Amino acid sequence: MTDTRAERADAYLETLHPSLRDALDRGMAPIAPDFAQLMVDFGYGEILSRPGLDPGRRQLVTIGALTALGHPVDQLKGHINAALNVGVTPLQITEAIMQVALYAGFPAATNGLRVAKRVFVDRGVSPLPPTASETGAT
Amino acid sequence: MTDTRAERADAYLETLHPSLRDALDRGMAPIAPDFAQLMVDFGYGEILSRPGLDPGRRQLVTIGALTALGHPVDQLKGHINAALNVGVTPLQITEAIMQVALYAGFPAATNGLRVAKRVFVDRGVSPLPPTASETGAT
Amino acid sequence: MTDTRAERADAYLETLHPSLRDALDRGMAPIAPDFAQLMVDFGYGEILSRPGLDPGRRQLVTIGALTALGHPVDQLKGHINAALNVGVTPLQITEAIMQVALYAGFPAATNGLRVAKRVFVDRGVSPLPPTASETGAT
Amino acid sequence: MTDTRAERADAYLETLHPSLRDALDRGMAPIAPDFAQLMVDFGYGEILSRPGLDPGRRQLVTIGALTALGHPVDQLKGHINAALNVGVTPLQITEAIMQVALYAGFPAATNGLRVAKRVFVDRGVSPLPPTASETGAT
Amino acid sequence: MTDTRAERADAYLETLHPSLRDALDRGMAPIAPDFAQLMVDFGYGEILSRPGLDPGRRQLVTIGALTALGHPVDQLKGHINAALNVGVTPLQITEAIMQVALYAGFPAATNGLRVAKRVFVDRGVSPLPPTASETGAT
Amino acid sequence: MTDTRAERADAYLETLHPSLRDALDRGMAPIAPDFAQLMVDFGYGEILSRPGLDPGRRQLVTIGALTALGHPVDQLKGHINAALNVGVTPLQITEAIMQVALYAGFPAATNGLRVAKRVFVDRGVSPLPPTASETGAT
Repeated sequence: MTDTRAERADAYLETLHPSLRDALDRGMAPIAPDFAQLMVDFGYGEILSRPGLDPGRRQLVTIGALTALGHPVDQLKGHINAALNVGVTPLQITEAIMQVALYAGFPAATNGLRVAKRVFVDRGVSPLPPTASETGAT
Repeated sequence: MTDTRAERADAYLETLHPSLRDALDRGMAPIAPDFAQLMVDFGYGEILSRPGLDPGRRQLVTIGALTALGHPVDQLKGHINAALNVGVTPLQITEAIMQVALYAGFPAATNGLRVAKRVFVDRGVSPLPPTASETGAT
Repeated sequence: MTDTRAERADAYLETLHPSLRDALDRGMAPIAPDFAQLMVDFGYGEILSRPGLDPGRRQLVTIGALTALGHPVDQLKGHINAALNVGVTPLQITEAIMQVALYAGFPAATNGLRVAKRVFVDRGVSPLPPTASETGAT
Repeated sequence: MTDTRAERADAYLETLHPSLRDALDRGMAPIAPDFAQLMVDFGYGEILSRPGLDPGRRQLVTIGALTALGHPVDQLKGHINAALNVGVTPLQITEAIMQVALYAGFPAATNGLRVAKRVFVDRGVSPLPPTASETGAT
Repeated sequence: MTDTRAERADAYLETLHPSLRDALDRGMAPIAPDFAQLMVDFGYGEILSRPGLDPGRRQLVTIGALTALGHPVDQLKGHINAALNVGVTPLQITEAIMQVALYAGFPAATNGLRVAKRVFVDRGVSPLPPTASETGAT
Repeated sequence: MTDTRAERADAYLETLHPSLRDALDRGMAPIAPDFAQLMVDFGYGEILSRPGLDPGRRQLVTIGALTALGHPVDQLKGHINAALNVGVTPLQITEAIMQVALYAGFPAATNGLRVAKRVFVDRGVSPLPPTASETGAT
């Protein structure tokens, strides 16, 4: 049955973070080799892959939680990437992070937007409408 | 223009928390009469009513942030009610709160589910499929 | 020399929280009798009584920190009382707490204002200008 | 294999919190019936029952984490009870909580000690050496 | 009326952080161009510029809140600079940060003092009394 | 008597963090020369050196608290080193940090394990059983 859990985790991860399991396995191998597997199998195979909430909305909940906590910067970066991977738009992401200013303060939201900016630049996406020069309009 | 902000706030609040402005005004009148107005006008009139993210997704982001922070219990209660008011289902709400266990720990999620339970009992709604006796099936 | 520390603590506490040492001693006596003394002697005798920052400004720093943390409700209540005892005005206190909304979110500030309201009601003070009926104007 | 996980969880819980699974099941049944099982099976069956750290030390780590977070009061109460159940002494518990003052501040430690006091009173135990009258000495 | 808010914000910022609006506008332009303006106009034009608490005391409240939260390092740096700009002394700033150790723990205070040290070195100011060689005494 | 406190602190620090007092004194000398001494003397001379909880268990409590808070990365690094210095094993440390995932979420635990990995690499220790090649087995 743990196979099934791992399979559900891998299926859920396939679109979201295709390389997460490998990256975690490599990073944690010298210190806590089971931890990456437990985290991925439980997190993705038993919690996030449950029916009842679609992957895009789940990523927005996660972005809300991580932005509010403030310190998990790498995880926020990973989940912004994952949100884009499941079709959340850049604008939905920036709106979600801005909104956290109301609940956890402006520093948390500002720092979250800086993380989003780095992700968007890396991927060449933007929450802003294209400008005339980008659209080729003259 | 501040009228417009207040009007946008009131329009956004109309479905979400119809009595929030009055309740805040009453509660804060003896101590910080401007605070309720500033919070509502800025929060609802300048942040939450922005286009780019619909009210249901915004409530899920807020539930993620408040559950992760842990201490704002009354605000979580208010926003679970508001989420139901804009069509988020009880099941989406419980799934969102459960998921926060991954990011902020089980105590935060457990306490969030307890708040949701009180809201659902008060409103007579449930995230669970109806049982045979509730559906009148025999 | 520890006597001197305790004496400095008691001198600092005399105006601020005249009954704090006794209340803490009583509360902690059955479980951690040294804790109240260590906390009071170190906190008031070695940190807060240092020159360089006056008691009123120190209470505002403390109100900022406790409001931002969110969970220490009893301590915030005690330090709002202490702030009033050293001449911080009710209006300075409500302004300080409101401002924390920017840094730690509206729920933290709202809950801090509710604590202040209870303290102000207990003491019969208010951050608001007196109304005509209260001043006896006709 | 999930049976084995549940069995490991139950075996680990047997001394620690004998009624936890039932209490959680009852509390969460109307809202998130799977959550209690997932939390208990994963937490106790996959994390806490791992070899490498004994139950007493694990409870001290948990008491450190929950006291520092500040808001999970019920969970801290449950884990102080569990610590006593696996042989951690009342004095080790109060020393652990006091020490968290250094890392998370005095309010967190003070509130943690208040929770411990309620647990100790309920169970008739104390971190203090017995007094002459309690030992029957004359 | 929003002009007036922006004007109040700019007037308040003039001494405090003269380049904040430009820096935020540039940083956020590619991702959330409205966010910097909303944050500055609301924060400085509607909250911090309110009468009832002077700018120096407001900066001490902010330093208390940001030091306690721990994660907003850049914001703490900005507000230590702003505090110096409105006449708060280096010694008042270090005393305020040290004091937060009591409420949020030594790590938060130590990290806050490290931020202050970088600001003070950059500006060539110090909380310490000048030494004989610095005063030219012989 | 304060001499005695400093002596107790130094005695407690001797094995734990032999260079902590000097490093703190140097780091804080230009900004808050008393702070390092107050923190070390109070922390080690009045809290951690109390009887009732041994140094290894105290380090596990500290690791629990710092991992849960998330932001004090340098302090967590220092206390993982100190834990190794007083005989806590690498495996006990990784188990303690992993366990905090349950109470404060996976990001806090993952980031804590990354800190531990850096400490273990620097010291050439590992929580894992030696492999055949490391033991010279053939």
